[in-house]
Amino acid sequence: MENLLKDILKTCYPYTGQGKVANYIPQLAKADVTEFGISVMTEDGVIHNAGDSDKKFTMQSIVKPMILLMALLDQGEECVRRLVGVEATGKPFDAFNYSDQALKSEHINPMINTGSIALCTLIKGETYLEKFNRLLELTRKMADNPSLEIDRDVYLSEKETGNKNRALAYMLKAYGMLHDDVEEVLDCYFRACSISVTSVDLAKIGFTLANRGKNLQTGEQMFPEKYARDINAVLMTCGMYDGSGEFALNVGVPAKSGVGGGIMAIVPHRMGIGMYSPALDGKGNSVAGIKALEMLSEHLDLSIF
Amino acid sequence: MENLLKDILKTCYPYTGQGKVANYIPQLAKADVTEFGISVMTEDGVIHNAGDSDKKFTMQSIVKPMILLMALLDQGEECVRRLVGVEATGKPFDAFNYSDQALKSEHINPMINTGSIALCTLIKGETYLEKFNRLLELTRKMADNPSLEIDRDVYLSEKETGNKNRALAYMLKAYGMLHDDVEEVLDCYFRACSISVTSVDLAKIGFTLANRGKNLQTGEQMFPEKYARDINAVLMTCGMYDGSGEFALNVGVPAKSGVGGGIMAIVPHRMGIGMYSPALDGKGNSVAGIKALEMLSEHLDLSIF
Amino acid sequence: MENLLKDILKTCYPYTGQGKVANYIPQLAKADVTEFGISVMTEDGVIHNAGDSDKKFTMQSIVKPMILLMALLDQGEECVRRLVGVEATGKPFDAFNYSDQALKSEHINPMINTGSIALCTLIKGETYLEKFNRLLELTRKMADNPSLEIDRDVYLSEKETGNKNRALAYMLKAYGMLHDDVEEVLDCYFRACSISVTSVDLAKIGFTLANRGKNLQTGEQMFPEKYARDINAVLMTCGMYDGSGEFALNVGVPAKSGVGGGIMAIVPHRMGIGMYSPALDGKGNSVAGIKALEMLSEHLDLSIF
Amino acid sequence: MENLLKDILKTCYPYTGQGKVANYIPQLAKADVTEFGISVMTEDGVIHNAGDSDKKFTMQSIVKPMILLMALLDQGEECVRRLVGVEATGKPFDAFNYSDQALKSEHINPMINTGSIALCTLIKGETYLEKFNRLLELTRKMADNPSLEIDRDVYLSEKETGNKNRALAYMLKAYGMLHDDVEEVLDCYFRACSISVTSVDLAKIGFTLANRGKNLQTGEQMFPEKYARDINAVLMTCGMYDGSGEFALNVGVPAKSGVGGGIMAIVPHRMGIGMYSPALDGKGNSVAGIKALEMLSEHLDLSIF
Repeated sequence: MENLLKDILKTCYPYTGQGKVANYIPQLAKADVTEFGISVMTEDGVIHNAGDSDKKFTMQSIVKPMILLMALLDQGEECVRRLVGVEATGKPFDAFNYSDQALKSEHINPMINTGSIALCTLIKGETYLEKFNRLLELTRKMADNPSLEIDRDVYLSEKETGNKNRALAYMLKAYGMLHDDVEEVLDCYFRACSISVTSVDLAKIGFTLANRGKNLQTGEQMFPEKYARDINAVLMTCGMYDGSGEFALNVGVPAKSGVGGGIMAIVPHRMGIGMYSPALDGKGNSVAGIKALEMLSEHLDLSIF
Repeated sequence: MENLLKDILKTCYPYTGQGKVANYIPQLAKADVTEFGISVMTEDGVIHNAGDSDKKFTMQSIVKPMILLMALLDQGEECVRRLVGVEATGKPFDAFNYSDQALKSEHINPMINTGSIALCTLIKGETYLEKFNRLLELTRKMADNPSLEIDRDVYLSEKETGNKNRALAYMLKAYGMLHDDVEEVLDCYFRACSISVTSVDLAKIGFTLANRGKNLQTGEQMFPEKYARDINAVLMTCGMYDGSGEFALNVGVPAKSGVGGGIMAIVPHRMGIGMYSPALDGKGNSVAGIKALEMLSEHLDLSIF
Repeated sequence: MENLLKDILKTCYPYTGQGKVANYIPQLAKADVTEFGISVMTEDGVIHNAGDSDKKFTMQSIVKPMILLMALLDQGEECVRRLVGVEATGKPFDAFNYSDQALKSEHINPMINTGSIALCTLIKGETYLEKFNRLLELTRKMADNPSLEIDRDVYLSEKETGNKNRALAYMLKAYGMLHDDVEEVLDCYFRACSISVTSVDLAKIGFTLANRGKNLQTGEQMFPEKYARDINAVLMTCGMYDGSGEFALNVGVPAKSGVGGGIMAIVPHRMGIGMYSPALDGKGNSVAGIKALEMLSEHLDLSIF
Repeated sequence: MENLLKDILKTCYPYTGQGKVANYIPQLAKADVTEFGISVMTEDGVIHNAGDSDKKFTMQSIVKPMILLMALLDQGEECVRRLVGVEATGKPFDAFNYSDQALKSEHINPMINTGSIALCTLIKGETYLEKFNRLLELTRKMADNPSLEIDRDVYLSEKETGNKNRALAYMLKAYGMLHDDVEEVLDCYFRACSISVTSVDLAKIGFTLANRGKNLQTGEQMFPEKYARDINAVLMTCGMYDGSGEFALNVGVPAKSGVGGGIMAIVPHRMGIGMYSPALDGKGNSVAGIKALEMLSEHLDLSIF
């Protein structure tokens, strides 16, 4: 496996120079495009690495499935589904038409910012810092890495420049879908996006979802099987932004990308995969990361279709 | 003229019960739908009234042309046009599409909230309170009424519940079209919307625009003729929300409505008209106010077409 | 007046090279961009010309107000308004959403293709050729030019390549807003767009609308005043495509442009104006034609605002 | 298995009365809502049936994956992908905006009408009847049922009333994505939608896709594995209209529904499933069919996530 991963990295290396690092947050623009790492956790519990698997980057949107899971655990499926829909065709923008129709839960999706911000309000906790800490704990547990922390610089950068997210949050508030203080909710969301991980962490978190919530070592069911299936299904249809359909064809497994350059892929029953390469395509997905996943899928017949 | 106005009020009175008062702000929901007033200022400088022409209501969107005028006076046409467009077909909502195109000035219009909020930033003043006070002064001068003040309850109500406007303002900020503190800008905007007027005040302000900025008594040119023409043209195409086309056919003069129930109509060279009746149609325009303007236009051949 | 027109043509001549001739129909792409003509009919009945006022070009969208007038004359205002709306903000495209909302009359406008095609069905006549001939007769009468004919090459070119209009017509049919054979309806529409005129013809037609339907020489009321006002009002808000707002500010009179390079402008009570210069801006309006109208409006204070 | 299927049918029977039969084609409106059938083909090659598994209904949109497969077989993946995209978020309606952006392949999807009509042009054949006949042959082969034929009444009904599809086809033509005669292309498409099948046929076709193109009995690879995976992936993200996300969570396998009341579901490596119950929900999917699939998935742990 290590040799396969090394081969893939070598073959896909030219793609690391083909995209652009995210620049909407000054901190992300500093990423080094030459870094390229891959980690795979297989059903025997072994982690296989190649390249820069020890480099840290922020989760960004990869934390969205974690927020969804935390909301499911804290409030149950019915409550979550009253707040957000699961269709890829939602049209959040229509809701902004000044003369018009109301924003409804069916228009928002847990994998777009609007939905993920809304879900932060469902996490239990006296304060939004406590809510975030509970989310961080869950993430640490799934990554089996108690040292996970936020990248303070990225967090502050997000907080300072996140006006589009402020617009989305106030829109939610205007339509009665967010009741708390917008800045507090967003603070939790910005912290969540700023959790700093390596490809190894993503491989482990992905494996927990692949294994339907069951810890391989201890056998502990960390969360209900149904929630793992729900999350994997949502990732399949909307995990890779506007490239989700393409990814379903070419790789064929649930995955979530983040503008920090990471991708977490889930091969049900078989593998968790973490990728890192910060140069993104026009849709916000890591170019080299996707190429590497395509090769890996082809070699190991990973597609679930 | 008084008799004509009384006849029109009588004939249109049944329409006062056909719409609904605005309920997006608790304070507006308290309006008395039985109130119905009309004022007309004619080219001889006389004000003709009928009905509840002494009832106060808040300007709401009727202040938008005042904000546009203030911005034009303070920064000139070129600067204003760099920030806002003038087409009715702009699609501000598209700009909210999370994965997509940027918000551009051509998408926003001085008669929609987004554009009007943006224009507040162009008014001169050390603070946003000072900016507002200069706008209030201009409004008082055009209404020839130094006692105009804001309705404090409405202002506080707007400020408390105006989350949709907060969303729009943060969206402007996200796209680099608003640089100051959002709450300060909105405070100016909310105050502006809360200026309390009577139909008499609207008739006088409207007359100033009809007379292309020239004060009838003093002969003073209060603002350049071109600005009056610009504002009247914008009102013609977008002054009555999604009912602007219909209004152009049925009344045929520039006008601006507000969800407070007021309508200000401008008959170039001839008249300024103020209307008040708080029950609104689905587009946000006073039902009885529009009906009364239709009758008045027909009787006096007011259409400019 | 002739001198003023000549000056304007001279000053605006450089703009004739700044746009592009329409290329969606092969025949239109052959237009000579150096041609530039202007004609003005004043209230004394005199026609003032400058430049290529004898050059022929096809009406294209300038025939839309004629189709609207013919429909009004044949079926009355109520019937017309059941079929088409008058708001500039209609969203015809939404109606194509496959899973979706129905197309409604309020979504279409007599100045967009969809609306104008629909209105052809309201014209009286046993066949669509007869309907077209009645429209041609009305146009000839308003232009006081019995020799008006269609440009056969342009007509055939439109018919051959007009698949977008076919799509719009079948969409109307799918939603029950067009009952006849699509190709027959479109044949009438394509012929109408292909009526060949000069700037003199447009000035005369425009004058009839400016004079509210009254023939200056004979005093005959060719059509009800109200219809002239309706058409002028619709042209004010939607006559210049997505440039209607800009035109309202800079010229300030109702007008209609066509991709053939013509513009017909209406100065209520005062003038009819015809323009011809085939190079178009990105919105489909004649670049030099608009510039010339801006200058003319400024010199003669034509704005109705 | 038969007992399980009978239990499921019994439990879900009340749902057969909750939707509405399709009424956009007169012929479909005649369907009998009390009919409810289910067929499952398992990896041992056995077909298990319950209820009205011998009732015939037309494939409608369930033929879309067949058209995609035929196009892939005849022209290869690259050619197909130049014509259609695979994202669920495509916005075909925007392309109808009259002033606007061009229609591009990325806006259309093989599972929406526009894309499926376009793909008909890629099927090999001298005439469109020949193209259709090749498609029918492939369908017969996959269903292992040489007697499959079109339902002539439904076909004629579609042809007569299919104006929305005509609009879509002319739109494709206007943007250079369809070159042949629109009526001929549509004739092929309407015939395809009218192929008459039973739930048994759908189970067998579905099994071929589940088995990645390999015939269970003969071992023949009917089409490349990659095409089966491609189709299953596209069905996963867009097979159930605007209910695809919900279906991914609740059932968790690729599937395609048709407004004729059928659903074909594919459980990779394990099963092909056919359902029939003609009452549809607001999204166009069989209400009882979805309920039955949810129960079946839960009992047999069919979700691929």
